[in-house]
Amino acid sequence: MSRILGVDPGLTRCGVGLIDSASARSVSFVHVDVIRTAADLPLEQRLLAIRNGLVAILDEFQPGVIAIERVFAQHNVRSVIGTAQVAGLALMLAAERGLAVALHTPTEVKASVTGYGRADKNQVTAMVTAILKLDTPPKPADAADALALAICHAWRGGASALAGETAAQRAWRTALGTSRS
Amino acid sequence: MSRILGVDPGLTRCGVGLIDSASARSVSFVHVDVIRTAADLPLEQRLLAIRNGLVAILDEFQPGVIAIERVFAQHNVRSVIGTAQVAGLALMLAAERGLAVALHTPTEVKASVTGYGRADKNQVTAMVTAILKLDTPPKPADAADALALAICHAWRGGASALAGETAAQRAWRTALGTSRS
Repeated sequence: MSRILGVDPGLTRCGVGLIDSASARSVSFVHVDVIRTAADLPLEQRLLAIRNGLVAILDEFQPGVIAIERVFAQHNVRSVIGTAQVAGLALMLAAERGLAVALHTPTEVKASVTGYGRADKNQVTAMVTAILKLDTPPKPADAADALALAICHAWRGGASALAGETAAQRAWRTALGTSRS
Repeated sequence: MSRILGVDPGLTRCGVGLIDSASARSVSFVHVDVIRTAADLPLEQRLLAIRNGLVAILDEFQPGVIAIERVFAQHNVRSVIGTAQVAGLALMLAAERGLAVALHTPTEVKASVTGYGRADKNQVTAMVTAILKLDTPPKPADAADALALAICHAWRGGASALAGETAAQRAWRTALGTSRS
């Protein structure tokens, strides 16, 4: 059984979703939340608040893997810096705790959860609600996206993360005694 | 007297330069270094190594202010994500310790140190060497840039950072008992 934390990084809303995965196709809901920071706070205070929020989640739920949405410079030029910074904090926290890390693209997440890489937010939310047998759809979209990331990771078995790993990265990971799966 | 840490953020080379500033035009050299991480390490390990390197510098030299190069999404699309993530770590660490933070653009730094906003790296290095009365020019350019950021901050008196501050940010800063100058 592995517990997976999905993180949909963002400065204003950072989605965090936790699931347990018993086998390749068996997943169950654990927790979902959105860490919010006010746009008029200084950037450094926003980043600290998100770091503290992520630490609280890691302490309470003790996931073994963190699946994070991969940030591209081409998308959302306006918000890419803040999104990258939040993703960077999540990555650093994973390394600090020796947790496995996986990055999944939005297309991979949508394809994995809905079967269609260009699915819209409503389709993703509906499928997440059905897959995890939730009574009500998780809101806002960032919350559903975080759960979708965790589901995607469980179903792909960390394959996409391993695919990009170099020999040096495997050696480093082996030395640390961590695994990506 | 205030001790200023300049940070030129980067994943492969993160420049860190420390100066003491006694008055507006009086600055003296304290320390310069470059935190390096190997390109074939997993991203999360690189970010953790840089965080640890910055923490070691903060612990040893106890600056009161961190001046960081402002990252723009328009520049260096290829490296902007990593640069933003390193800058984000420095910002978070500053907030964690209640240190003042200032962001300066490359143009501001060049204009402040050389008098010319489009100065090249050699000109910046030469001026930093002269201003701080160094025996040898700091190398690589990331080291000189980090010292230039600190000098820029001392000479501008943190004005550029304060200019963009909203009333809510001032209130937050006042509540925390920190200052930007």
